[in-house]
Amino acid sequence: MMRNFITTRDWSRSELQDILDYALTLKAQPFQPLLKNKSIAMLFFNPSLRTKTSFEIGISELSGTAVILQPGKDAWSIEFKDKQVMDGEPEEHVKEVAEVLSSYCDCIAIRAFPKFIDWELDRTDHVIKSFAKYSSVPVVNMETIEHPCQELAHLLTLQEHFGTLEGKEYLLTWTYHPKPLNTAVANSSLLIASKFGMNVTLLCPSESYHLDKRYLDAANENCSNESASFNISYDIAEAYAGKQIVYAKSWGSLENYGDASKQSKQNNQYKNFIVDEQKMGLTNSAVFSHCLPLRRNVKATDGVMDSDYCLAVAEAANRKHVQKSILSKIL
Amino acid sequence: MMRNFITTRDWSRSELQDILDYALTLKAQPFQPLLKNKSIAMLFFNPSLRTKTSFEIGISELSGTAVILQPGKDAWSIEFKDKQVMDGEPEEHVKEVAEVLSSYCDCIAIRAFPKFIDWELDRTDHVIKSFAKYSSVPVVNMETIEHPCQELAHLLTLQEHFGTLEGKEYLLTWTYHPKPLNTAVANSSLLIASKFGMNVTLLCPSESYHLDKRYLDAANENCSNESASFNISYDIAEAYAGKQIVYAKSWGSLENYGDASKQSKQNNQYKNFIVDEQKMGLTNSAVFSHCLPLRRNVKATDGVMDSDYCLAVAEAANRKHVQKSILSKIL
Amino acid sequence: MMRNFITTRDWSRSELQDILDYALTLKAQPFQPLLKNKSIAMLFFNPSLRTKTSFEIGISELSGTAVILQPGKDAWSIEFKDKQVMDGEPEEHVKEVAEVLSSYCDCIAIRAFPKFIDWELDRTDHVIKSFAKYSSVPVVNMETIEHPCQELAHLLTLQEHFGTLEGKEYLLTWTYHPKPLNTAVANSSLLIASKFGMNVTLLCPSESYHLDKRYLDAANENCSNESASFNISYDIAEAYAGKQIVYAKSWGSLENYGDASKQSKQNNQYKNFIVDEQKMGLTNSAVFSHCLPLRRNVKATDGVMDSDYCLAVAEAANRKHVQKSILSKIL
Repeated sequence: MMRNFITTRDWSRSELQDILDYALTLKAQPFQPLLKNKSIAMLFFNPSLRTKTSFEIGISELSGTAVILQPGKDAWSIEFKDKQVMDGEPEEHVKEVAEVLSSYCDCIAIRAFPKFIDWELDRTDHVIKSFAKYSSVPVVNMETIEHPCQELAHLLTLQEHFGTLEGKEYLLTWTYHPKPLNTAVANSSLLIASKFGMNVTLLCPSESYHLDKRYLDAANENCSNESASFNISYDIAEAYAGKQIVYAKSWGSLENYGDASKQSKQNNQYKNFIVDEQKMGLTNSAVFSHCLPLRRNVKATDGVMDSDYCLAVAEAANRKHVQKSILSKIL
Repeated sequence: MMRNFITTRDWSRSELQDILDYALTLKAQPFQPLLKNKSIAMLFFNPSLRTKTSFEIGISELSGTAVILQPGKDAWSIEFKDKQVMDGEPEEHVKEVAEVLSSYCDCIAIRAFPKFIDWELDRTDHVIKSFAKYSSVPVVNMETIEHPCQELAHLLTLQEHFGTLEGKEYLLTWTYHPKPLNTAVANSSLLIASKFGMNVTLLCPSESYHLDKRYLDAANENCSNESASFNISYDIAEAYAGKQIVYAKSWGSLENYGDASKQSKQNNQYKNFIVDEQKMGLTNSAVFSHCLPLRRNVKATDGVMDSDYCLAVAEAANRKHVQKSILSKIL
Repeated sequence: MMRNFITTRDWSRSELQDILDYALTLKAQPFQPLLKNKSIAMLFFNPSLRTKTSFEIGISELSGTAVILQPGKDAWSIEFKDKQVMDGEPEEHVKEVAEVLSSYCDCIAIRAFPKFIDWELDRTDHVIKSFAKYSSVPVVNMETIEHPCQELAHLLTLQEHFGTLEGKEYLLTWTYHPKPLNTAVANSSLLIASKFGMNVTLLCPSESYHLDKRYLDAANENCSNESASFNISYDIAEAYAGKQIVYAKSWGSLENYGDASKQSKQNNQYKNFIVDEQKMGLTNSAVFSHCLPLRRNVKATDGVMDSDYCLAVAEAANRKHVQKSILSKIL
């Protein structure tokens, strides 16, 4: 049965652990002809450094072929709504794009950030869902409103460091950034940390920064299933205390979604959420990580980024291995 | 002897049939080392989804290497006129570009739409002709003022559906689009349908939308050679009646070429040329196709695009196979 | 020991000759699996035709994998200064970029022209030096303030033509261009011509066009070591007289660096520096070359470019062979 890799919510904990275990095998033995005679179309609606490079090189290491497309730049712009009179900007409908690409290649990978206009629309993840609807080959999420490849890289890095993660004290902290960013990695952090049995705390400046109810509910439910706890804090000192893992991400308030200027002003009040050595000192010798890119001395200080406990680069490096494992499983 | 693939006018019907036959072989057995140790430079002066993806993956399936270049974006802009004092925008002359690329690779493929300023210049197809003049490796047309790869994909799809095409009733209909588009696929439609012995009708709103005399004359001559008929109609009902194949394309009037605003206003009068189920009902159970990208409910309705008789995606899929066959023949 | 290829100043004449000799071997036998299971990230901060194509195809001919990245376009923009509060444009620091890319691939190649604002900063070559500082894989220069790959292609072409180059009469002439260009190829010309024992003359309109003292000093020192001469001339007839090699390049005056309008006006006074047949007639039957791209009838006339003594395309062709040799040596 064909399977997409769009959200880890569609995959059981043990299935995900299989992917992680095989990623370690591939990390030890990187060159395998597992994707021989397979090709993957990678559609980037947004910029990328790590995702593009790790997928391209990873696919090559497995003897596969990657094709890079940038709709709206080097390829035609695409309509995602059905039944439209297409007299605006888009030159073609996702149905044709997905069907044609399905005829050329064996997998379609999509990076499509939200549009930051209407969260009610963006939360439907309609771009990648539309591709999945019309594609006859597996669809892989390279970051939309979730970032499941990052989730697995994050988890693999923590497992390499800690071994089992059950009962570990995990903090996801909002951190400052001058612009309102995507919630994807934050959503993903909650999903995966809760799924693997950690006690999860979400730290953010106020209720206005709560993530979508879908992800809060999932974190609650996952933690409950794993006999772990999930809670939300607005108190920096309390939230960092005793933590073993600090994961940081900035995002724009969903309350003010669509008003970038208002979101930026709101963010500007909370520059103190920067991850620094003083805050890390409150933890139980926690490791720190971040998905990158990271603005130094804005999201985290040089001291934190250059510390021995910073796993951000190791996590990025693991992107290649987990993605190779994912593609091997679904292709 | 080195051969370019710039226009099907340079190739006999039987040579083209050989390419089509071999395309079917490659469709059945896609992975062949026919381009091993061969590389193709693909120059895109314009956006592309199908062409880029089908060439890149097709070349890879034949063990070759594709390099993508976008002059004016990631590469320097190019001068095409000889004897110029080059103190304007272009940083280098096509002679050096063609000679240098010829030294690096085994084939140069070009997508260069007309400039939509002066049809007398654009109709000379000077961009690809300049590359051909200075290149010492074969040059392939990825759409200029003709689109010969699309022609062969179109024909292969029709042959798969009908078997022999001689005497089939073929309609090329102009269709509405808000912008004045390239005539390339329309020119190509006339060339290939007439060459393979179909009775060809060109339907357009008025004489103002006639294609270039070169293509009307070629269609007339081909049809005459094949004892078939070619005629032009401005009457929708009459033109659709009894047809077995409906191919649609929008283009800007050559009469008003260079005046995009005037062309758009002119197009706006003929929104009724949209291909819809009512019109298709007038045919002799015709199949429908289009080169894509297609604006739904502007050029053709959802009903037509989602019908069983729509071959547009099958035609796009066949791009890969015919292009692999072409490259195998000329390299 | 890991070695970068950032400047030929770090490589001895005999080491460079080894690279050139092996380039000839690879020119005769292009397909070797020397980069099997190796991947190279190529970062383009600026446009490229020859560099991109020759590296991509060359790497493929050696069974390696190339990944193209365009920071600021398809990848995030990068901060190069340390200890910055990164609240401006760049989304990440070169330290993370270099470390992450080092984890994915076996080599980082960089094209980063100067910013043309402050030569005191640009002359530090801080972009590629920052990558080298933080990378754990070799870094290769695809043109910054020097262009060492071009140097070797230039030299290989001259050696193919002349055999030994010792004592040859070599002219680097400034030539007109409407914009102030990078000094990289001019700097490189002085470095490599002097290193291989030629008598080198730099011709430019005035002292204002002198290249950076670092390169004048290096040329002086190299020539002195090789018992050859280095001198600077402002007299066209005197400089061309008796020369065996004429290499042309335009650049903006360092004196007026940062003021593009002033530099352009300054350049405009010296259109007579164009390389033409009359000037070439003053030489000792010299060959002519240029790194390309070249504006015809601005930098050199059609007559010179189309002559038998023009080696510009041969030099460009040799880019592929020397780069394959360089990568083979350092990876």
